[in-house]
Amino acid sequence: MLIDEGLELLDELEAWALLQTADVGRVGLTMGALPVILPVNFTVLDGAIVFRTAPGSKVEAASRQAVVAFEVDDYDTAERTGWSVLVIGRSEVVHDLSLTFALRDAGLEPLADGQRGVVVRIRPEIVTGRRIARSGEASAG
Amino acid sequence: MLIDEGLELLDELEAWALLQTADVGRVGLTMGALPVILPVNFTVLDGAIVFRTAPGSKVEAASRQAVVAFEVDDYDTAERTGWSVLVIGRSEVVHDLSLTFALRDAGLEPLADGQRGVVVRIRPEIVTGRRIARSGEASAG
Repeated sequence: MLIDEGLELLDELEAWALLQTADVGRVGLTMGALPVILPVNFTVLDGAIVFRTAPGSKVEAASRQAVVAFEVDDYDTAERTGWSVLVIGRSEVVHDLSLTFALRDAGLEPLADGQRGVVVRIRPEIVTGRRIARSGEASAG
Repeated sequence: MLIDEGLELLDELEAWALLQTADVGRVGLTMGALPVILPVNFTVLDGAIVFRTAPGSKVEAASRQAVVAFEVDDYDTAERTGWSVLVIGRSEVVHDLSLTFALRDAGLEPLADGQRGVVVRIRPEIVTGRRIARSGEASAG
């Protein structure tokens, strides 16, 4: 087990498994030359991260063939436990009705009302994860 | 109340108030030409977001005078409720013992073990927030 400054580095399989326990993730991309982080509810389909956004939105424009970050995490500050997974990959706006149907079958519905008919897909190129190592685990393991 | 695609746009005071309810936020920055999102536990001091990181880390290097994004959120997917706050500002590595003491007094301790003696401060320039609007609230309010 690799420990880096109190953080256990997860292997890619563990990171994927944790990522798939989450409903909401965060996309990091550049809009108008500024960095932004936007929460999205997402699902994983065929090894890619998929979410919906509004047609004509800034998210749609920024997602066209951009390299983006995608993050999920879960922390319990009282217990001092938690983990995070970071994905880096190219995003793309998908015009594929079969994917739209697959999303509906997977039950991916945006949390908020409004039109979110555009599907964005992020194809992971780098997947990393970290988990807070419990004290003593480094020396015990 | 402004509603945009099912999301209520918060004013800056509301966004700040929500931001300060959170312990863990996420920093979006560029490392080695790639976008990354990293969770940090943070506090607010004198109107700035402050967190600790490891000396010599990639985070320290990337935080030097960079424009970064900082995000907090809280969602309940079962209830379809939640909010997010996005801050954009310049980050800087702070070498100021009085700030280090103030952080200790504020009880900001990193969740993970390890050396995190470097203090990073983000001075907010843009603060925005969104909350999922409950169905019907737009027309009722």
